[in-house]
Amino acid sequence: METLETYYQQRFAARTRRIQASTIREMLKLTTQPGFISFAGGLPAADLFPIERMAQVTQRILLEHGAQALQYSTTEGYLPLREWIAQRMPGASPENVQVVSGSQQGLDLIGKVLIDPGSPVLVEAPTYLGALSAFNPYEPQYIAVDMDDQGLCLDALEAALKQQAPRFLYVMPTFQNPSGRLMGLQRRQAIVELARKYQTPILEDDAYAELYFNGQPLPTLYALDHALGGGNVIYLSTTSKTLAPGLRVAWVVGPKPVIQKIVYAKQGADLHSPTLNQMLVYELVREGEWYRAQIDKIRQTYQTRSRWMLAALQKYMPPEVRWIVPEGGMFFWLSLPEAVDSLELLQRAVAEKTAFVPGQPFYADGSGKHTLRLSFSSATQAQIEEGIRRLGRAVHQMLGREPVA
Amino acid sequence: METLETYYQQRFAARTRRIQASTIREMLKLTTQPGFISFAGGLPAADLFPIERMAQVTQRILLEHGAQALQYSTTEGYLPLREWIAQRMPGASPENVQVVSGSQQGLDLIGKVLIDPGSPVLVEAPTYLGALSAFNPYEPQYIAVDMDDQGLCLDALEAALKQQAPRFLYVMPTFQNPSGRLMGLQRRQAIVELARKYQTPILEDDAYAELYFNGQPLPTLYALDHALGGGNVIYLSTTSKTLAPGLRVAWVVGPKPVIQKIVYAKQGADLHSPTLNQMLVYELVREGEWYRAQIDKIRQTYQTRSRWMLAALQKYMPPEVRWIVPEGGMFFWLSLPEAVDSLELLQRAVAEKTAFVPGQPFYADGSGKHTLRLSFSSATQAQIEEGIRRLGRAVHQMLGREPVA
Repeated sequence: METLETYYQQRFAARTRRIQASTIREMLKLTTQPGFISFAGGLPAADLFPIERMAQVTQRILLEHGAQALQYSTTEGYLPLREWIAQRMPGASPENVQVVSGSQQGLDLIGKVLIDPGSPVLVEAPTYLGALSAFNPYEPQYIAVDMDDQGLCLDALEAALKQQAPRFLYVMPTFQNPSGRLMGLQRRQAIVELARKYQTPILEDDAYAELYFNGQPLPTLYALDHALGGGNVIYLSTTSKTLAPGLRVAWVVGPKPVIQKIVYAKQGADLHSPTLNQMLVYELVREGEWYRAQIDKIRQTYQTRSRWMLAALQKYMPPEVRWIVPEGGMFFWLSLPEAVDSLELLQRAVAEKTAFVPGQPFYADGSGKHTLRLSFSSATQAQIEEGIRRLGRAVHQMLGREPVA
Repeated sequence: METLETYYQQRFAARTRRIQASTIREMLKLTTQPGFISFAGGLPAADLFPIERMAQVTQRILLEHGAQALQYSTTEGYLPLREWIAQRMPGASPENVQVVSGSQQGLDLIGKVLIDPGSPVLVEAPTYLGALSAFNPYEPQYIAVDMDDQGLCLDALEAALKQQAPRFLYVMPTFQNPSGRLMGLQRRQAIVELARKYQTPILEDDAYAELYFNGQPLPTLYALDHALGGGNVIYLSTTSKTLAPGLRVAWVVGPKPVIQKIVYAKQGADLHSPTLNQMLVYELVREGEWYRAQIDKIRQTYQTRSRWMLAALQKYMPPEVRWIVPEGGMFFWLSLPEAVDSLELLQRAVAEKTAFVPGQPFYADGSGKHTLRLSFSSATQAQIEEGIRRLGRAVHQMLGREPVA
């Protein structure tokens, strides 16, 4: 027998042969070393996980409904949770709701159901890296649509919709991962209308929906589409950013024909999401007042941390570096001078024991070499101050300048 | 806009358009009605779930390691659990282990990694229905290999291996779902050797590994292959049948090149399995003595229930009906007279308020019309007596005979 590597290489599916080990992933493995300050991971703040309440509630579920919580259950998900989700989405009933194991699984199942090899799929530039990982095995042809401060550029979007017949348009209108952008109301309305005009469904990823620092949430694309007759938006959200990501409880809300296909796809993919986890999440979110307070605590904490990061960026970055000041979410998105490649910068940053995620992997078209994502959600004030100081020093070095401090 | 059904029908991926609603699934939805005795679901006995211990252990994990249990974690899975799994598999290290959300997810990810449209895949006739659901979206060309009482027929297997270049051979050698068959040691050895000779990897699904009623477990195909040099078996097992299925904790053990691809596939599919669930399973299985006692309790209970079912079958079935007496697992597999279509029988059975799963969906080649699967794992003695009596009556009716009772 030849080497195992060669033996299996000949047996892997074409969709898999394309996957390469990621340099960035390898580099970021170093960030667990002592003394490292990493802004790379998009980790919700673990100090805000409602651990004691979860321990209490889990105990109660197991002792009172253990047989149900531990048994196989329906693919669609725990009905009371689906009812709670449906109530929050205009015009939805539980038949429009599929519970999934994290938004990531929603993306995978939607890719499985809607993408043929070569299917055009419109994505934002930049877009969520994990969505590309989810869709890639189904071999779409991505069309990356430019963005401005308000989100997708309408001219570019209309041109793409006109030329192609995309299977769908994937957007994250609220505090986008990676750019932190909040799409304005007019832009939302225009995009929903364009998608209807060109008969292209929208996949709205609303993972950061609840993380507004201030002000009233804007309507979802799902709600705006519903007001125009509905049926053209498939909606994804999660409790990963409001309760805890380790439970892996999220959901897809969409038109019944799509949800039916997703149910079959999910049945083949993992039968159902863990029953106990779904019941736990339901018992937490149904306590409206408590859940609201939990979310408020997260919002305030992230707002404070984002301000610390803003202050540190202003203090330590050279004036050519630009960023979007986030109004919510977990990220700062930086544009470096065109001369600075963020992958090279990461090497220097890692030498300084700090890290971020380079922007290029978030671009389906391979652009974005001079961009990067910083996460503030899990960092202390001291870590932000020191980590951004180190990063600023690395940027100054790459520009051949003396650092600020 | 046309109807939503038509609108999306034009946008679904080809792999999805083939999926049809299942008549059987619809019929079995009726089995939740009061008075129904169903042997259809392959449900582990909920009365044996170690609920109180799980409640205690979960409480401890959350209060002592809550931040870890609720945070994002690595795609590969919880390291102590992977170490525990690796220790039980000859020659394996944690790098050979991927934790998955139920064996079902293992099947899906392996399909994603190894099946191209049209790839030949060898399966047993009958085979696990859920494996077909997992593989179907990747559009393999199934080759169903005949079985005798010892498992796959060697001549048929060799002929198939010779003619095709299958991507893999999928087998469940221990208490197969649906047939309950236990593949003998000689047959195991021969199959492992044939697969190596024809350079076809084996996918060994060992979900029922621990459910021997008596006697010493036979070596796994993985172990037999390891003794010949290893690298040709990808192995799947789970805690769904020993602890509880609702937790969705299972694993794939395989050659590193395959596991690496599975890691990438899983990262795109759902990032990782729930951290809390993995930690809970680890804390339970690491208590070797307790875990052994838990499994013994399940074995004894299932053996008792299988004997009740055997007695009822002997009492109520006409002599033409044949079955395999299981030496473990959760199922009886019945062969009816060729004249009796088990889908028609199901309609009569449902009218009598009892149910089973018709055998045909377990055959990749659409044969098996006169077979059916009965699960005894969750039934009481009274349910078995009365349910099999009803079923016997329906069989007698279809044969135009007077029932026994």
